Amino acid sequence: MIYPELLQKMISFYKKLPGVGDKSAERMALATLELKKEDISDFSKALLESKEKLHSCQICGHLTENDICNICSDTTRDKNLICVIEDYKSVFSFEKVGNYHGVYHVLNGLISPMDSIGPEDINISSLVKRVESLEDSELILALKSTIEGETTTLYIKKIFEKKNVTISRLSYGIPIGAEIDYLDIITLDKALEDRKKISE
Amino acid sequence: MIYPELLQKMISFYKKLPGVGDKSAERMALATLELKKEDISDFSKALLESKEKLHSCQICGHLTENDICNICSDTTRDKNLICVIEDYKSVFSFEKVGNYHGVYHVLNGLISPMDSIGPEDINISSLVKRVESLEDSELILALKSTIEGETTTLYIKKIFEKKNVTISRLSYGIPIGAEIDYLDIITLDKALEDRKKISE
Repeated sequence: MIYPELLQKMISFYKKLPGVGDKSAERMALATLELKKEDISDFSKALLESKEKLHSCQICGHLTENDICNICSDTTRDKNLICVIEDYKSVFSFEKVGNYHGVYHVLNGLISPMDSIGPEDINISSLVKRVESLEDSELILALKSTIEGETTTLYIKKIFEKKNVTISRLSYGIPIGAEIDYLDIITLDKALEDRKKISE
Repeated sequence: MIYPELLQKMISFYKKLPGVGDKSAERMALATLELKKEDISDFSKALLESKEKLHSCQICGHLTENDICNICSDTTRDKNLICVIEDYKSVFSFEKVGNYHGVYHVLNGLISPMDSIGPEDINISSLVKRVESLEDSELILALKSTIEGETTTLYIKKIFEKKNVTISRLSYGIPIGAEIDYLDIITLDKALEDRKKISE
């Protein structure tokens, strides 16, 4: 064994993380040895607590330490505007943008007949209940443009078809800063189809 | 605050590690939440213990959980062949090669007048004592080729000049697989100077 046992344990742990190979894991473990004792004990505590205390928000399914997440319990947010997402990781992305003042609904998966995941396997019934309790709401479907994402989008659209709900999806188009020459043809096709008039 | 507190704590910790930026730290913290409970508690324990239990070997200064490291206590290794290195991280590199059957001496620094680090600030006196207890020994100086490394190499060479000790250094030359066209001139100069006869 090349490493002392404790160091080997740390290296093995770091290697489980995404994007961390042998060399980086070694570097990270050695750097860990040089960190302050309080940083290490804080992190060690957070690690253990995270498994116990972090769970889904009872309303939207986002990650939280409480029964109801910060976003759902924020009285300044528009509860009638619900952004529907695949998993809670997307919440962080939207929150970083900082412009969105509605709330979220985490489906915790997408409908995928190939993997035998049906509508009952993801958080759709809780979405229906949630929307029924509102008078006038808008659902923004922010799901990826794969077969599973499209299937789920269509399914949700159909459920709410005859109800008093506005359904929208994120716009498709050219990412900011992208070179048009290198864009894939499907994106370019969508950007053409969804073009926006800018003259009066 | 975008993240739940516990997640934020994990992200902040990961960001202290080398080569980990905002985005990777987030990815790593989110991946951590999906790891098995036992992996997390093992790691958390190893983290805390590492600060308490890992220290320098009393003989060579390498990282160990015991008084004497695995290498120094290995009876099959040649105790008369000592590879002198700047810090214990080099031990792992040499051990990975797997061809070296001597032992090590970790200087824990290099002589650097610019930073007021003198010979008494690094583990040179313990090296002298160690060599004095041996009858016939060889020191391999494996220090980097910076001013500090060269100064330390010269200093150690001088100390042992009139003693019964063979002193060698690692060879300089072309790294395996390197393109000669792109090699820096100093390395090329050294490779020329240290050339090895291959004809009979």
